[in-house]
Amino acid sequence: MEEVWVAGAAMNKFGKMSDTGREAAAKVSLEAIRAAGLEPKDIEYTFVSNCFGVAERQAHVGPLINTSLGIPDVPSATIESACSSSSAALHEAYVHVAGGFLNAALVVGVEKLSHMETLSATSYFAMGADYAFEARNGATFPGLYATLASAHMQKYGTKPEELGAVAVKNHQNASGNPHAHFQKPITIETYLNSAPIAWPLKLYDCCPFSDGAAAVVVVNPAKYRRDIPGTSAVIRASARAGSIAALQDRPDLTALPAARTAGEKAFKQAKVTPKDIDFSEVHDCFTIAEVLAMEDLGFYPKGKAAPAAREGQSAVDGSTPINVSGGLKAKGHPVSATGAAQVVEVFEQFNGHAGKRQVKDPQWALCHNVGATGGSCSVHIFEKK
Amino acid sequence: MEEVWVAGAAMNKFGKMSDTGREAAAKVSLEAIRAAGLEPKDIEYTFVSNCFGVAERQAHVGPLINTSLGIPDVPSATIESACSSSSAALHEAYVHVAGGFLNAALVVGVEKLSHMETLSATSYFAMGADYAFEARNGATFPGLYATLASAHMQKYGTKPEELGAVAVKNHQNASGNPHAHFQKPITIETYLNSAPIAWPLKLYDCCPFSDGAAAVVVVNPAKYRRDIPGTSAVIRASARAGSIAALQDRPDLTALPAARTAGEKAFKQAKVTPKDIDFSEVHDCFTIAEVLAMEDLGFYPKGKAAPAAREGQSAVDGSTPINVSGGLKAKGHPVSATGAAQVVEVFEQFNGHAGKRQVKDPQWALCHNVGATGGSCSVHIFEKK
Repeated sequence: MEEVWVAGAAMNKFGKMSDTGREAAAKVSLEAIRAAGLEPKDIEYTFVSNCFGVAERQAHVGPLINTSLGIPDVPSATIESACSSSSAALHEAYVHVAGGFLNAALVVGVEKLSHMETLSATSYFAMGADYAFEARNGATFPGLYATLASAHMQKYGTKPEELGAVAVKNHQNASGNPHAHFQKPITIETYLNSAPIAWPLKLYDCCPFSDGAAAVVVVNPAKYRRDIPGTSAVIRASARAGSIAALQDRPDLTALPAARTAGEKAFKQAKVTPKDIDFSEVHDCFTIAEVLAMEDLGFYPKGKAAPAAREGQSAVDGSTPINVSGGLKAKGHPVSATGAAQVVEVFEQFNGHAGKRQVKDPQWALCHNVGATGGSCSVHIFEKK
Repeated sequence: MEEVWVAGAAMNKFGKMSDTGREAAAKVSLEAIRAAGLEPKDIEYTFVSNCFGVAERQAHVGPLINTSLGIPDVPSATIESACSSSSAALHEAYVHVAGGFLNAALVVGVEKLSHMETLSATSYFAMGADYAFEARNGATFPGLYATLASAHMQKYGTKPEELGAVAVKNHQNASGNPHAHFQKPITIETYLNSAPIAWPLKLYDCCPFSDGAAAVVVVNPAKYRRDIPGTSAVIRASARAGSIAALQDRPDLTALPAARTAGEKAFKQAKVTPKDIDFSEVHDCFTIAEVLAMEDLGFYPKGKAAPAAREGQSAVDGSTPINVSGGLKAKGHPVSATGAAQVVEVFEQFNGHAGKRQVKDPQWALCHNVGATGGSCSVHIFEKK
């Protein structure tokens, strides 16, 4: 088994994007390749995520990106898993490089939906749920995550002020991230007074619709070591799991089984425990999702994560920093770019480039990326090198 | 490097499908798993292709298929590359098993578009082209392949009667295939008198819009050998390549560069030559595409494939059997199911189950699956075991 390093990573500013998806993807790809000290011709395979390319009438975007990079002959494949698409793509790249099939691969996720009406964006997102049993009957993601939130509140007494603490922290972190969609801190009062979206979730519980692109270059260091200019992130674990997609068929609504399974596999593979992780980027499409992640990954026992968030334990300078980038909640959530963007944060933190949101000398980081309401989950663990 | 065997494969009848995509995918998956002598719980990863799931408002179909199979915890990923999606998925499964990451994986491709208006189906297909430079300006696939056909006619004197011979042969082969969309032979007169679609292509040059699903189970035989009931197909090569997608930017329109590159890689990997191949399933979305494939793969020198087709060399009992299943042209082309369905034909031929279209004692087979007008291409070579 070969070692697999993230040698370069880059993203654009999430938010409303004037570039088309193919343009944005090519730009961040070139930046990531250069950050790795490579040239496009060193890339041997391109793994692309672009779930809603149809909104731009453009499927099969891999050859277009490779052509823009000047490497049209290089094979590409689209790898998707709803909101966890580019972490699923990273898993494929990891397997190819770890197995010795490739020495350098590009992973790039991109999404552009802002040119659609908001209703259409919601409708596109809802295709990640179980259409026959959820979306067709009117359930969209705010409603589905509201169901998870109310179950958690009922069982563990989770309070709006605790979910609000997650939102306030993530907006605070995003205010130090020039790539973030939202760069203004909010107060707990702003949170508590915000409009209800789907009870118990308010406006500030929900991540925005964002456009964006993010790219990651993975290499076999034995072949490329001399060229890597900065600090790399060694992928010590790349684990994925699935679960029943429809909430109605799950025995328990206070945890995401795919996240628990993928997390357990990842910690076993990396031979570390939650205590060893210096910071985590987790899938907080809604504030409750961050609370679930903190528990599903074993950072906190069930019912203890939300109070811990309110106590500041998950802040940049807390005992268990979570979403130091601002997370999906405030950095933004351009579906297929999200998993790769989490890795960009790991790369920037390991290189000491995170400015105001810099975690002190991190050695280990974790990324947790959920597809839909947890039909899929990927967990990656990285060591600084 | 572990050996990778196709131990089971299954498809439904291509054509108009009353099942939803998720239902059809689960059914053929179960059939393929049983053909391999396995149970669903033996499957460790599911690679799904479903390019136009959005037409059913269902993205992220992997967890739904796995849940139907009773294995919701198993990870899944969507792997796509336009019309070459499920061969790209097979490549991922191959790498996972060959690299020792998995012992048994499911590859399943499914597409349902017949509930859409025909215009919509054409529009969906066109998303596989370069939107900005082709589809936005009105080019859909019949027009793009007509461009390739007219260039080939001009340079090599390729005749309508030669393209017609491809159509007549593939309809003949499909008439012996109970899974085929079209099961009626046609005459050369029917072909020649059929309506023009995009000059020089006529109605019978074009494959139909089909619904359908096909599944393939790949295993590491060292772990599963005792359970495999029938004859398997060893994957001796799994190769992919890309190319400039837009025809306007290609230096030559009489070959698909991605097919040439993937073919060369595959023959090198399998350590065989075109002479060793007993039959091939190639990507004949239009008759000209079969002619290009015969040349791009090295079965014939440039300009010699079309006359050879007219002489009957590519018939089931010819010297170089091509598309014994009926091909995309007559078996049908449910985009994401096509690559996997080609492998189903290899599996049935190797097991001697191909009835009227059975090739005599085949030992080696090749599958060639093209994405769009050749922005991507996968070539797989199989040995009977």
